[in-house]
Amino acid sequence: MERNVYISNMPLEKAQQLFAEKLQNCNWFSQDSENIPVKDALGRITAKPVMARRSSPHYVASAMDGVAVKSSSTFGATETNPIIIPSDEYLEVDTGDYVPKEYDAVIMVEDVNFLPEGIQIIKAAFPWQYIRSIGEDLVEGDMIIPSSTRIGPYELSSLITAGVDNVTVVKKIRVAIIPTGSELIEEAAPHMLPGEIVESNSYMLMSLCQEWGAIAIRHDIVIDDQLLIKQAVLDVLPDADLIVICSGSSAGREDYTSAVVSELGELLVHGLAIRPGKPAILGVIDQKPVIGVPGYPVSAQLIFSLLARPILYKKMGVAIPEDDQLNCSISKKIPSPMGVDEYVLVNVARIEDRLVAYPLNRGAGISSTLVKSDGVLHIARGQEGLEAGANCNIILNRSPQEIERTLITLGSHDLTIDFLIDILGKEHGVRLVSANVGSMGGIMALRRKETHFAGLHLLDYETGDYNTSYLQKYLPDQKWLLVNLVKRHQGLIVAPGNPLGIKNIQDLADKRVLYINRQKGAGTRILLDYLLKKANLHPSAINGYNREEYTHLAVAAAVKNDGCDTGLAVYASAKAMGLDFVPIAVERYDLCILADLVSPDQLDSLLAAIRSDEFKKQVNICGGYELDLCGQILYRHDL
Amino acid sequence: MERNVYISNMPLEKAQQLFAEKLQNCNWFSQDSENIPVKDALGRITAKPVMARRSSPHYVASAMDGVAVKSSSTFGATETNPIIIPSDEYLEVDTGDYVPKEYDAVIMVEDVNFLPEGIQIIKAAFPWQYIRSIGEDLVEGDMIIPSSTRIGPYELSSLITAGVDNVTVVKKIRVAIIPTGSELIEEAAPHMLPGEIVESNSYMLMSLCQEWGAIAIRHDIVIDDQLLIKQAVLDVLPDADLIVICSGSSAGREDYTSAVVSELGELLVHGLAIRPGKPAILGVIDQKPVIGVPGYPVSAQLIFSLLARPILYKKMGVAIPEDDQLNCSISKKIPSPMGVDEYVLVNVARIEDRLVAYPLNRGAGISSTLVKSDGVLHIARGQEGLEAGANCNIILNRSPQEIERTLITLGSHDLTIDFLIDILGKEHGVRLVSANVGSMGGIMALRRKETHFAGLHLLDYETGDYNTSYLQKYLPDQKWLLVNLVKRHQGLIVAPGNPLGIKNIQDLADKRVLYINRQKGAGTRILLDYLLKKANLHPSAINGYNREEYTHLAVAAAVKNDGCDTGLAVYASAKAMGLDFVPIAVERYDLCILADLVSPDQLDSLLAAIRSDEFKKQVNICGGYELDLCGQILYRHDL
Repeated sequence: MERNVYISNMPLEKAQQLFAEKLQNCNWFSQDSENIPVKDALGRITAKPVMARRSSPHYVASAMDGVAVKSSSTFGATETNPIIIPSDEYLEVDTGDYVPKEYDAVIMVEDVNFLPEGIQIIKAAFPWQYIRSIGEDLVEGDMIIPSSTRIGPYELSSLITAGVDNVTVVKKIRVAIIPTGSELIEEAAPHMLPGEIVESNSYMLMSLCQEWGAIAIRHDIVIDDQLLIKQAVLDVLPDADLIVICSGSSAGREDYTSAVVSELGELLVHGLAIRPGKPAILGVIDQKPVIGVPGYPVSAQLIFSLLARPILYKKMGVAIPEDDQLNCSISKKIPSPMGVDEYVLVNVARIEDRLVAYPLNRGAGISSTLVKSDGVLHIARGQEGLEAGANCNIILNRSPQEIERTLITLGSHDLTIDFLIDILGKEHGVRLVSANVGSMGGIMALRRKETHFAGLHLLDYETGDYNTSYLQKYLPDQKWLLVNLVKRHQGLIVAPGNPLGIKNIQDLADKRVLYINRQKGAGTRILLDYLLKKANLHPSAINGYNREEYTHLAVAAAVKNDGCDTGLAVYASAKAMGLDFVPIAVERYDLCILADLVSPDQLDSLLAAIRSDEFKKQVNICGGYELDLCGQILYRHDL
Repeated sequence: MERNVYISNMPLEKAQQLFAEKLQNCNWFSQDSENIPVKDALGRITAKPVMARRSSPHYVASAMDGVAVKSSSTFGATETNPIIIPSDEYLEVDTGDYVPKEYDAVIMVEDVNFLPEGIQIIKAAFPWQYIRSIGEDLVEGDMIIPSSTRIGPYELSSLITAGVDNVTVVKKIRVAIIPTGSELIEEAAPHMLPGEIVESNSYMLMSLCQEWGAIAIRHDIVIDDQLLIKQAVLDVLPDADLIVICSGSSAGREDYTSAVVSELGELLVHGLAIRPGKPAILGVIDQKPVIGVPGYPVSAQLIFSLLARPILYKKMGVAIPEDDQLNCSISKKIPSPMGVDEYVLVNVARIEDRLVAYPLNRGAGISSTLVKSDGVLHIARGQEGLEAGANCNIILNRSPQEIERTLITLGSHDLTIDFLIDILGKEHGVRLVSANVGSMGGIMALRRKETHFAGLHLLDYETGDYNTSYLQKYLPDQKWLLVNLVKRHQGLIVAPGNPLGIKNIQDLADKRVLYINRQKGAGTRILLDYLLKKANLHPSAINGYNREEYTHLAVAAAVKNDGCDTGLAVYASAKAMGLDFVPIAVERYDLCILADLVSPDQLDSLLAAIRSDEFKKQVNICGGYELDLCGQILYRHDL
């Protein structure tokens, strides 16, 4: 099969409309219903209105604990003229008891004086007082709930009360999901070959189906073979309402999905003017919709949500639950080409009275951005991106309440920040979102008031001190607090056994050694430059100086798995990966907190988490840190 | 056992606090966790942070379909000076393919010209372009999600990608629910005895547990016998984390719950200063919480939500999902005694720029108000109720979007309104909420702009016409539209075979005949008064004139099930209950729509639903209606 480089560029709404019209013509949206026991119906959607089969109460009932009387026998009773009703003219009743026809009122037990000769009452009862009439709750024949209603806990118990034993509900829609790709494997293995990918998209899509109220059926992985993919589609077709083919929808050589759809049915769309998700496929086979979703997880999620969710809800007959939205200002410029609907995942936090949206890495291959994200920014086709600070509307995938209890920290990365995230969340109900922009990036974010606090380890070449001089220079007009989190060992990470025998910074100039660097502005990069300068080495002498990673763990991973021989990073990252470590320096890693941006409660929670035994315990397990300054306030900058 | 009339009146917060402290002391909130396969973990909550067990990608990967090259071999390539790279110096790659160590860049397929001697390129590749580094998505050892995190679709697939096969999650909390009461039966039967009640509360509480993420285990119904209830508690105790005893918690003679709790453990609270729900019980048995919930469904729901939900979420380690709230104005005065926390179920609709909350019947025995309600109004202990029009905060149990698409109709009741509700919901996405306040009540609601439209059947004694003269009198300054819905047969509903031989209005004066009337302001009541006057009968001549029901079906139910011999109502209600019908009159039932309160779209939907074939079909099946005017605009009142 030859490369099909040119897929189309159809606007999203046009594709959605085309798809819906085609399915309408196929009569696909007509509902299938089934009759199920009411006690199994929680969460299901009614396909018909449900009428009460009996009245409740079905008899005249007492609404109180007390005595049933004939109201006329109480007329004239007052405190000064109590009336005694003999035992054969009243009936003791509890709430819900039947009140026989000869009585027409109930007197509360608190208002009755029980005497040997009968009951004494001091107030007349008016007719029908404290009596529940037949059908007060439900009347036989009354509509309890209309069609297209979700049966929740209240509906369920009301149906039982109304004598409804079976209920006609919308049949669950069946979605067949076929993962395709010769590179895919079913389970992660300890030693995976380069090029092997663990198949996980189908589980994400199945989980989405489950949350939307559909049933997902997963086919086994199918390798890139047009005949096998075709056979898989034919296999699932009879039992499925919707067929989803995962991956294989790009313009790569292994793109068989569109060919299979064309062969078995009608290919409606191949290629959308949307990013990510461009190579999406829409078609109809045997009057049933087929969606080809791209292989990258962020693309797969987006395409599935934009194209499967609306048709599933439409077929179920209920409105799509609307996500919460927030008006935010965007933290940085986002370019986007005209003519493309772009979707950018973001974090959101409140900074003083602003809600700020922080764009996440736009790589569609990064499943972890879906996990980290708080919502999505849609840049419409007619728009050409956003300037930093621009107003934008964020569609949330968390509750606004969760956003309100979020602290954000932009700055240098350290493993111990993860411990803070965990402790703050479980012990203090504070959600901490962390993004790694390096120490200098952190200082710039503080300066622009875009982060509540920042992790910093910036060495002052002249004083040998950390952070303070930088902060004094860049944040002269703000109130801030410098708190030590940890001191940490920096060193050269090497393969187990240190095969190249690297002992110090000088050894990096060895041409055999391939170095992996950190990004500009990272404290570790500054430390390296300082060490190189002290050693009289020029960066150009270091093989790999220009290749950058953004975290300590990523540096360690590059050494462990492929290509690189060494990189400067903290001890903990070497240990996490089972690598060796050549110690070079101990540095201070502090948090600079903007006093005006955090509430007193937030500050208390943050300091309590840093100073907690649990934090220290986790850090000590990790190794490579010193805690003698941990939690100490090193500097307070007031105005 | 003697009557224990005096239960305490503890403020809600005090009871919640006492309960939480006691459970804290019992160490009940400490989490139980379990290790489960990640593929079964959707919706579960992490008990520990989850770290990546492998990096993704675990190899240097191509980010594009194209060719892998050594970037240095491309330097200098331009449109005017293309470079040809021979076949043995590049490698064709697809997205996700491994890029071996000898290459350091990928060129997109669109930018490559394949020639027999190699590939021609016209632009230099910079180092590491379109190459995904190891761990770009996830790095081994990185925290993917912290503790106390709900595993959703994105988390699930990210965990699979990260090689996590098992995950430690919070064990589901087990809630044992014991329904008690000698009056309870398991299933509705065709001929239930007076005093028998279908047990349904336990299913509501079980469903709530399921929605909150707990497991509910239902015990069989236990009759009112202290020994048997005690035995039931002992039976469920070993396997339950929380024990809920339904009903039996009032001051009635059959109140054994508090006695059992005292005997087996510690009774903490019996009686709360809250309405409904006063007779709630809190206790601890064997270090486990016990809640006694009252028997009325609205009380049971409230007590369970206020007392079980917070402790369940606290034990699960996650925040209670916050319900949406709306600021509304209340449609009518709500008195409430000082010193009691009162909870009032309400409907909510937007009327022009106001959100109006309509209090529902406060009877705690009415399960259908839970179904109908959109939210709850909390009147705090320190407050003495609300005046009509007062501002109030409503905690919603529906989405604000659902509220926004709600139309409200206050007025006279007719069965055909249910068909409109059903058709508007499923065909037009309009939610119609109907409350029966009678025709005159409807006119008053229109006058106060509290309803979008009203169903009316008000006979003008002088002209013999319906509705128009009333509307002209009461709504002179508003724009309105009068649309006919149906013409309907009114008549006397009698038992099958008409045992008393009732033929006309005169027969109502027969002393053997017990009449059931409609409430004041109901069109049917006005019709009766008109007919009585024409027949020269005084209301006092009618036995039962003062006993009122609020709907046609309730009148029919009173005739069918107990006590009453006849009542004036529409044919459809007689038919629904299998009763006989003595025709008396045909009347017009119109809808008066306030033109300024409904949008053009809403008006279109409403008229389309009225004029639909489906509506007419349903009405004809019902019988007793005439449709010759259905959907006709009878009058337009413009200003």
